[in-house]
Amino acid sequence: MPEFQKINDKHELETGSILAPRFNQDGLITAIVQDEASNEILMLAHMNEEALQKTIETRQSHFWSRSRRELWHKGATSGNTQQVKEIRIDCDQDAVVLKVSVQGDASCHTGRRACFYRKIDQKNGDTILIIDED
Amino acid sequence: MPEFQKINDKHELETGSILAPRFNQDGLITAIVQDEASNEILMLAHMNEEALQKTIETRQSHFWSRSRRELWHKGATSGNTQQVKEIRIDCDQDAVVLKVSVQGDASCHTGRRACFYRKIDQKNGDTILIIDED
Repeated sequence: MPEFQKINDKHELETGSILAPRFNQDGLITAIVQDEASNEILMLAHMNEEALQKTIETRQSHFWSRSRRELWHKGATSGNTQQVKEIRIDCDQDAVVLKVSVQGDASCHTGRRACFYRKIDQKNGDTILIIDED
Repeated sequence: MPEFQKINDKHELETGSILAPRFNQDGLITAIVQDEASNEILMLAHMNEEALQKTIETRQSHFWSRSRRELWHKGATSGNTQQVKEIRIDCDQDAVVLKVSVQGDASCHTGRRACFYRKIDQKNGDTILIIDED
């Protein structure tokens, strides 16, 4: 598996054409998964080098499962695979956005379409969560 | 400043109405900032307890700057503050989405509207980045 490059120069890192992801101390970058049609944010996960490489190669979302400590081909067991239409990386190359089309419509392990199904709201001075699957 | 609650029960954490953010070993949760009108993902940042509390109270984005190690009121120096229209939290309460309206239109420190201005692409078998500010 080819290794990613490392770039120390800030200007090159931020404006260049070389992919040089900055994995953290645990070897991970953050991945935001967004529905390619609606732009809804579906979930947030983490990728190690292998997960990013596999996602680029196969165009299917792969993550690093921090709880199971293993490569995680999203949907391999549930059937809800994610076909990756576009991958974007941020200025300092420690986060990516995957624009995906979901096979079967669920991205959250609870069976919901997206993980962000609760709003933080305030009611009589208290901060509460309200389920809001719009 | 009121402290957030802690919930150990998985079902209550995932389906309940109590805000109990699961800060990591560094005391942080992940915050995704999304444009409330276009749903474009503008940036990704981190929040400690105080930043989340201030964001809820003031309805302006506050983060924890990991490089400067201080509370960061987004836009306080640049003028590009973010008015928070909605806050969502994910199933296991370790990530939030802020739906914002940006004062002045830039959210990236490079002056761009969003941090995710480069696509990961493949060209002649090589993986490269392409600037694509759509």
